[in-house]
Amino acid sequence: MSASHAISRVLVGQSGGPTAAINASLAGVIEAARGLGASVLGMRHGVQGLLAGDLVNLDATLPTAADLELLRHTPSSYLGSCRYKLPAIEDDPTPYQTLFSLFDAQGIDAVLYIGGNDSMDTISKLAAYGEKVASPVRFVGVPKTIDNDLEGTDHTPGFGSAAKFIATSVAELGRDASVYDLENVLVVEIMGRNAGWLAGSACLAREDGLGFPSLILLPEAPVEEDALVEAVAAKMHESKTVVLAVSEGARRPDGTLMCEAPLGGAKLDAFGHEAALSGTSRYLAGLLGARLGIKTRAVELSTLQRCASHIASATDLAEAAALGAHAVQAAADGLTGVLPVVRRTGNEPYTVEYGLVRIADVANEERHVPATWIAASGMDVTPDFADYVRPLADGLPSHVPAL
Amino acid sequence: MSASHAISRVLVGQSGGPTAAINASLAGVIEAARGLGASVLGMRHGVQGLLAGDLVNLDATLPTAADLELLRHTPSSYLGSCRYKLPAIEDDPTPYQTLFSLFDAQGIDAVLYIGGNDSMDTISKLAAYGEKVASPVRFVGVPKTIDNDLEGTDHTPGFGSAAKFIATSVAELGRDASVYDLENVLVVEIMGRNAGWLAGSACLAREDGLGFPSLILLPEAPVEEDALVEAVAAKMHESKTVVLAVSEGARRPDGTLMCEAPLGGAKLDAFGHEAALSGTSRYLAGLLGARLGIKTRAVELSTLQRCASHIASATDLAEAAALGAHAVQAAADGLTGVLPVVRRTGNEPYTVEYGLVRIADVANEERHVPATWIAASGMDVTPDFADYVRPLADGLPSHVPAL
Repeated sequence: MSASHAISRVLVGQSGGPTAAINASLAGVIEAARGLGASVLGMRHGVQGLLAGDLVNLDATLPTAADLELLRHTPSSYLGSCRYKLPAIEDDPTPYQTLFSLFDAQGIDAVLYIGGNDSMDTISKLAAYGEKVASPVRFVGVPKTIDNDLEGTDHTPGFGSAAKFIATSVAELGRDASVYDLENVLVVEIMGRNAGWLAGSACLAREDGLGFPSLILLPEAPVEEDALVEAVAAKMHESKTVVLAVSEGARRPDGTLMCEAPLGGAKLDAFGHEAALSGTSRYLAGLLGARLGIKTRAVELSTLQRCASHIASATDLAEAAALGAHAVQAAADGLTGVLPVVRRTGNEPYTVEYGLVRIADVANEERHVPATWIAASGMDVTPDFADYVRPLADGLPSHVPAL
Repeated sequence: MSASHAISRVLVGQSGGPTAAINASLAGVIEAARGLGASVLGMRHGVQGLLAGDLVNLDATLPTAADLELLRHTPSSYLGSCRYKLPAIEDDPTPYQTLFSLFDAQGIDAVLYIGGNDSMDTISKLAAYGEKVASPVRFVGVPKTIDNDLEGTDHTPGFGSAAKFIATSVAELGRDASVYDLENVLVVEIMGRNAGWLAGSACLAREDGLGFPSLILLPEAPVEEDALVEAVAAKMHESKTVVLAVSEGARRPDGTLMCEAPLGGAKLDAFGHEAALSGTSRYLAGLLGARLGIKTRAVELSTLQRCASHIASATDLAEAAALGAHAVQAAADGLTGVLPVVRRTGNEPYTVEYGLVRIADVANEERHVPATWIAASGMDVTPDFADYVRPLADGLPSHVPAL
């Protein structure tokens, strides 16, 4: 680190949907910045709060190592979050001027932004504007999203903890559903509009030995309703209880979502993405109940899957903190417009190394479950998927074998 | 224990809805029976399976102490369950004759049945028939129900673990819901058709410091929709995020459930209870969204709240096992038609003693949250309720104070 890049004042924000690991990244940022002798400011509610000048002195609110340890295990975004999309610089430079005046007034050397795809769009634009006006401020991203759909990294912090909660819950729900001597279908709805990483993670529940989930529906593998009904009926010959792990974005071959009418339209959010979906499990439970004449139940894991810090993956929290620290180091090294990422170097034992990518290369891209990890039936993942997610979820509770 | 009461062969079953602690009771039964030198048979799917002769040798499937330790932490009912109501003896003695022939053929000394209100009806009838025919078989209940609505005991195994999951989840969900700088209402739906013990337990989430849940709706305290809308609007002046913990059995003063049309009718199950409800949170989220013009979200904790062994209360598991052991001892002491119960002898520190009640005195009764533990507003519980449930839930995860 050359003296010209020395960091004395770091500004950090959190953006997008909260996770069980996003505060571990914040703790990693704060700890690393303090290690370099820098003070740390936080933006409340991300860039949206920052535009209103809403700052907090994190050296005052979280002064001790014990505070940071507690922060690591605290769910949701400690600083608050936003879903705010900066306009294109050429369309409206006003917010950029506001923000850079603030950076200047506050003596900020580095801005770190913890977030997913949409948040990387924000930090990428700030970096571009900074280069344009030759600002000395460095802009570095810190990856975060339970959706695991960020390009350029093996996986994203938040995903492993969500996967652990999902697989643990599906194992527990499967045990619960199979308690009566009665044919029944349990449909568990899992987040993921366009990427099936979270729904696929339910496959780890099979390691509990009951064979649940029986089938997995991913957005990447559209399925005909008739084929699904047939597959469930076939599974019922093996086990009176059938458990489906379905992505909220499960869809038909005509492109319509299971939770909407065939060829209906979905609402768009500020980023042009489809607005929050719901009802996929209820729709499928209704469909299967009507077609098979059996008891069905729909369970939505809802926002629990992104905030269940009580069962966070230790691997996930450790990596989240490490990525925060790497982001601080990148800024201290004088880099801007970059994002630290994880690269897997071994699976048994699981090992990783950290690298950097240019944010502009990965922002606004969406990483999907590769076709080779989807089973030929289109209603399951392959063992390669399980091998991929297993070390990230960091071990599930053990139970006695079922009778 | 006199020689005439010696136990050499115990038959144990599980009945009703599963919990996170019901297998700990089973482990307690097996361990205590083995301690007395008895062998243990299990009935698959409760009395319903037993009528079909579906037995399992638990000394073969769970031979070691390590198996029992794993069983303690395994969710759902290891033996399977049923919802089967024995006919009145005078209406139809056939099932009784079938069962007592089987007890005789198998050399059973004691039948232990782990369950809630409905299961106690079963064991009470079996004990009455046994006395009538002067059978040497002893019939002892083991209390179990997340609903905590069994008379004659301070609380029931399964409740503490459910309360811990509920309070932990409401704390996490509240953190998650308050992440954006945006007025919003989160409605969390909690089990409990007629008793508000589980919904009330959400009050422990307040110890996380955010003041969530903002309001609690119990079946015991009907509320007018207008009053609820007003109370939520008032809470919104204190905090942009309002979290409601609502029992699935929340209702209006006219007696109708929130999830049904005013003065509509609810279906009845085999026990004459109202059939499974759903949709209370969705209904209230829709109502509040429409009336207040704000973003709302409904989350159903669903069956997760009864099967989340990964966050079971250690106090709950220990008491569940102890009650199983006390049931075996009661049978060894020659008692029949009894149920071991927990009596609280201290709260700080929390201490209990175990006692016995006659099942006939408590079966088919329903214990409600006392009126003195419901806040004057009718939309909350009092601090006495929190003091009651705190030691049962056995400690929640700690987080940093919110900004």
